[in-house]
Amino acid sequence: MALVCKACFPNHCARAAPTRYRVTYTIDFEPIGIRLLCEDPLTVSAAARQAGLSLRTVCGGKGIQAERSLLSEEQLADGWRLACRTTVSADVSVYVPATSLTESQVIQLAGRASHVESCPVVDVLPVTTASPSLADPAADLGRVADALRREHDVGAARVDLPALRSLCKALREGEWRVSVALRGDEIVAAYPGSLPRALGLAVDVGTTKLACYLVDLETGQTIAAKGVMNPQIAYGEDVMSRLEATMVAQENAAQMQQAVIEAINATANELCASQGLATEYILDVCMVGNTAMHHLMLNLPVRPLALSPFVPALSAPLDARAWQIGLSTAPGAHVYLPPPIAGFVGSDHLAFLLAAGFGQDDRTRLGIDIGTNTEIAVQAGGQIVSCSTASGPAFEGAHIRHGMRAAPGAVERVCIAEDGRVDCDVIGDRPAAGICGSGILDALAEMRRVGIINERGRITKGMPGVRCGDNELPTFLLTNRSDARRDITISQEDIDQVLLAKGAIRAGIEILMDYLGVTGPDIDELLIAGAFGTYLDPVKATCIGLLPDVPLARVHAVGNAAGDGARMMLASTHVRRRAADLARRIGYLELAIYPGFNKYLVRGVRLPPL
Amino acid sequence: MALVCKACFPNHCARAAPTRYRVTYTIDFEPIGIRLLCEDPLTVSAAARQAGLSLRTVCGGKGIQAERSLLSEEQLADGWRLACRTTVSADVSVYVPATSLTESQVIQLAGRASHVESCPVVDVLPVTTASPSLADPAADLGRVADALRREHDVGAARVDLPALRSLCKALREGEWRVSVALRGDEIVAAYPGSLPRALGLAVDVGTTKLACYLVDLETGQTIAAKGVMNPQIAYGEDVMSRLEATMVAQENAAQMQQAVIEAINATANELCASQGLATEYILDVCMVGNTAMHHLMLNLPVRPLALSPFVPALSAPLDARAWQIGLSTAPGAHVYLPPPIAGFVGSDHLAFLLAAGFGQDDRTRLGIDIGTNTEIAVQAGGQIVSCSTASGPAFEGAHIRHGMRAAPGAVERVCIAEDGRVDCDVIGDRPAAGICGSGILDALAEMRRVGIINERGRITKGMPGVRCGDNELPTFLLTNRSDARRDITISQEDIDQVLLAKGAIRAGIEILMDYLGVTGPDIDELLIAGAFGTYLDPVKATCIGLLPDVPLARVHAVGNAAGDGARMMLASTHVRRRAADLARRIGYLELAIYPGFNKYLVRGVRLPPL
Repeated sequence: MALVCKACFPNHCARAAPTRYRVTYTIDFEPIGIRLLCEDPLTVSAAARQAGLSLRTVCGGKGIQAERSLLSEEQLADGWRLACRTTVSADVSVYVPATSLTESQVIQLAGRASHVESCPVVDVLPVTTASPSLADPAADLGRVADALRREHDVGAARVDLPALRSLCKALREGEWRVSVALRGDEIVAAYPGSLPRALGLAVDVGTTKLACYLVDLETGQTIAAKGVMNPQIAYGEDVMSRLEATMVAQENAAQMQQAVIEAINATANELCASQGLATEYILDVCMVGNTAMHHLMLNLPVRPLALSPFVPALSAPLDARAWQIGLSTAPGAHVYLPPPIAGFVGSDHLAFLLAAGFGQDDRTRLGIDIGTNTEIAVQAGGQIVSCSTASGPAFEGAHIRHGMRAAPGAVERVCIAEDGRVDCDVIGDRPAAGICGSGILDALAEMRRVGIINERGRITKGMPGVRCGDNELPTFLLTNRSDARRDITISQEDIDQVLLAKGAIRAGIEILMDYLGVTGPDIDELLIAGAFGTYLDPVKATCIGLLPDVPLARVHAVGNAAGDGARMMLASTHVRRRAADLARRIGYLELAIYPGFNKYLVRGVRLPPL
Repeated sequence: MALVCKACFPNHCARAAPTRYRVTYTIDFEPIGIRLLCEDPLTVSAAARQAGLSLRTVCGGKGIQAERSLLSEEQLADGWRLACRTTVSADVSVYVPATSLTESQVIQLAGRASHVESCPVVDVLPVTTASPSLADPAADLGRVADALRREHDVGAARVDLPALRSLCKALREGEWRVSVALRGDEIVAAYPGSLPRALGLAVDVGTTKLACYLVDLETGQTIAAKGVMNPQIAYGEDVMSRLEATMVAQENAAQMQQAVIEAINATANELCASQGLATEYILDVCMVGNTAMHHLMLNLPVRPLALSPFVPALSAPLDARAWQIGLSTAPGAHVYLPPPIAGFVGSDHLAFLLAAGFGQDDRTRLGIDIGTNTEIAVQAGGQIVSCSTASGPAFEGAHIRHGMRAAPGAVERVCIAEDGRVDCDVIGDRPAAGICGSGILDALAEMRRVGIINERGRITKGMPGVRCGDNELPTFLLTNRSDARRDITISQEDIDQVLLAKGAIRAGIEILMDYLGVTGPDIDELLIAGAFGTYLDPVKATCIGLLPDVPLARVHAVGNAAGDGARMMLASTHVRRRAADLARRIGYLELAIYPGFNKYLVRGVRLPPL
């Protein structure tokens, strides 16, 4: 839960210019000044997560407390609400008191200067040049370079063609007063008169979702954010099926590249329009993603990524022209792509580790980003190692008979009483339609606790709620409805799937820990990134042995930390250097050839003793 | 005339792979090793000029000596021919003895090392990398960078996306042995195994013609050359009409850009194919042209070039990606565009001055490139100044009643006897169809010599060959045929046009000379660039006052010196730096506002006293 104040419906902020994209409604987080564009109804806490804002929650944003038990009548009358209990679906301003922000967020927002001091790659400098005449017919570029030297003591030595074209136009439109965007000694854009706002765009290109953040480059603050689906999903749900799609037909690669860039452009355009700005003010871009997303968005060959030994085209930072990959930005803007670590450990993982403080002190850390591939990193004794493990989509609800994504209708929390009575929480308070990853994990932990399954995950026949037909593997009934076809059950196969996924993850964790000689109690911080991490109950996760034995207070869900890292790198050249250093420091362990991997896996699949 | 040996028809050289472009025939110049691709019949001396080869001629390549008067029976039997008297139209090998090369050419070709030592911007280095495995899944780029450091002690820090794509492909095709093209610390291409030949392309983009030279980057030698029409001619014959075309319809600019690049690509492809090579081996490009051509090929805004004060977008060297402007080259090749000097003094003029030795010693030099706009530069006392003068197209045969380009049927030489009998030389030895620039200049000089025109260019009525109807300005009859409609005449208006052109040029020359305090006899070298310069008779040009009084031995036609300069800059980074230094040193004088310009013009128009 989190405290939310004075939600005014609808808000009276100046609305953005209408765009050609569908904007259902906007949420303005005050006094932070982030605007989130939304299409579907959301709880305020979910919206905050999308906006990259960490709210201090006890319930994990799951809305398990009632407002009346935590807020006084006076507070309620004054407009205070719980973020996890308030669903919005129309324009709204939300005031977030500093006490509701997590510590790191408070530091980041209130005292950001001490956290990531904004030091953008691009500076904007106003100059006034003499207007040309027959007596002074010097070239446009030289004229501006002279003014930059004279007025700002900076040298401009380079310019890309599209930026030069914009410079010529701006000089005449601005009647020889222009704002020049300078990236080192390179002019990347020029604007007549003064530039309304220097913008940057950070994007976390996920396999499923794109998280786009519009950042004020001067302050480093996020001013608008939006998450949209990755349209590449049309070519396959997961990374491997997309890589296969390019191998089936080469043109699919170019089409996927276009699709993702178009989605980013549309979202950037929306975000800019919501502030009355234009994408041509975007002077810098930072994009992170797993290595396959990274390669696909650059149209780099991915065949080697799909086949053993899974070699990426590069594992260095890449600096390309934004226009070169089709991004709508300032004419000469660059796009910065932080280095992938390996074929299956991408720059999104690097961004997560960066945001989580890896490489900056001597603390012992374990970082996990759970997905179809789960990336894991451990820092200990001055070393950092990472690995990737093919955990499969079970935690995303796939390959599970009644599995579904964490959407309305999904069972997300399960309690089993000693007598076998099952109590389920369903997202959106409606009849259960399926079960999502955190629900399955909960169910497993509860089934183990009350003894419905044993250490190897076998369902014990005859226990309450266990069904078993002839020649059939047993099944556990979660919800019992009049219409039996709509019963939500967990089968032995489901449990095996989940245990395989958890085994793969735990094996990766154990290998990295053993490699660095770390045990559970040594770990100062266990950081779980991503949406799944946010919904994960660390007690249950430890109970089924997904996580090693780490004191609960040291377990933190860090939300979209990859997006945070991307924004940090966007905001500061220093952070980019730090990220490149970090990337070089991170060792990569290939689990497939790690001695004794199978033993780790078998051990990982097993449930801990009660 | 020039000596030409052992012309073997047809040649037995290995023919190039067939291309999709029309190649009528090829001329191989031996032992120099330049292959010229031709479509129309040419004299060997004209072909040599197109190939950028300066032959030592007395007649100026005009074929006024008979072969039998200069070559012995034995020589003729042995296959020796005069270059100016031998027209070729089929595949041929031409052996050029060193004695037939001009001094500078001999130096350039025989001892080029001492002249322009080849020092290309791009190096090609072979490397062998370990093939990847699960134990060594390092990225392609890092693998190659390591090998470069290990095997060649060079660092590769940067790579453009298309080059990275080619690197990934080459590594696998070459089974981890590749040739890497490195431009400083940037990888611009990679080839499986070894690269057949590292190529460079130099282009002189003229308003009328494109001269393309294929250069071996390792030796710096030209290996094939071809001149083609600039297809932009469809948008206007001269620079101004093309600039106007972009102002009438903006899309014309992009179309003109495409047209010229397509023509260059087609020609480069032909040149490569003639050597059994491919354009993907072109690792570097240097293009020169007047400022309008420069801007049009980059699609830079040209409106400011068309209107006073004629401001270019830039007057700095520009380094762009070849693919960025549509050139077919190695994937990451750059294109180098030397700096234009001013709106009407382009990088072709800079290239000419560079090739002519401006800025390299203290000699007093006058350099002229005559065209619709004539660019002039004077070097004296450590200073170099340049100007451009609107001389109009009279010297190209335009705006002259019977004017035509220097093509078969054009009167190119005129002699008038004291009795008024006129003797004309016609290009291609056929009935006269018109008169070209050098013919007009000749005619004027002769008319002045025998007194048919006075100091102000007025035709004296009653002189032999002068016709004058009632109320008509007089006309001078050049050729008298039975069919009077096909008579070639020179009218008073024609003379006025030519004198205006010559006046503009002479005014420019005088202003620059006065500005630097130089008189005719001070000039150590008077260099005339371009085709017109080659055909110009310096005696006649001095006689009508086009050129100042400079001892004849100091007047040199330097042919396509802009193409020479482009090739020099292509071949050597040192020369590029020298060119950039030279460009900074060249002052530009705007004649339109030069004090007393009109007086200079009036004086320039007048013919010198006899």
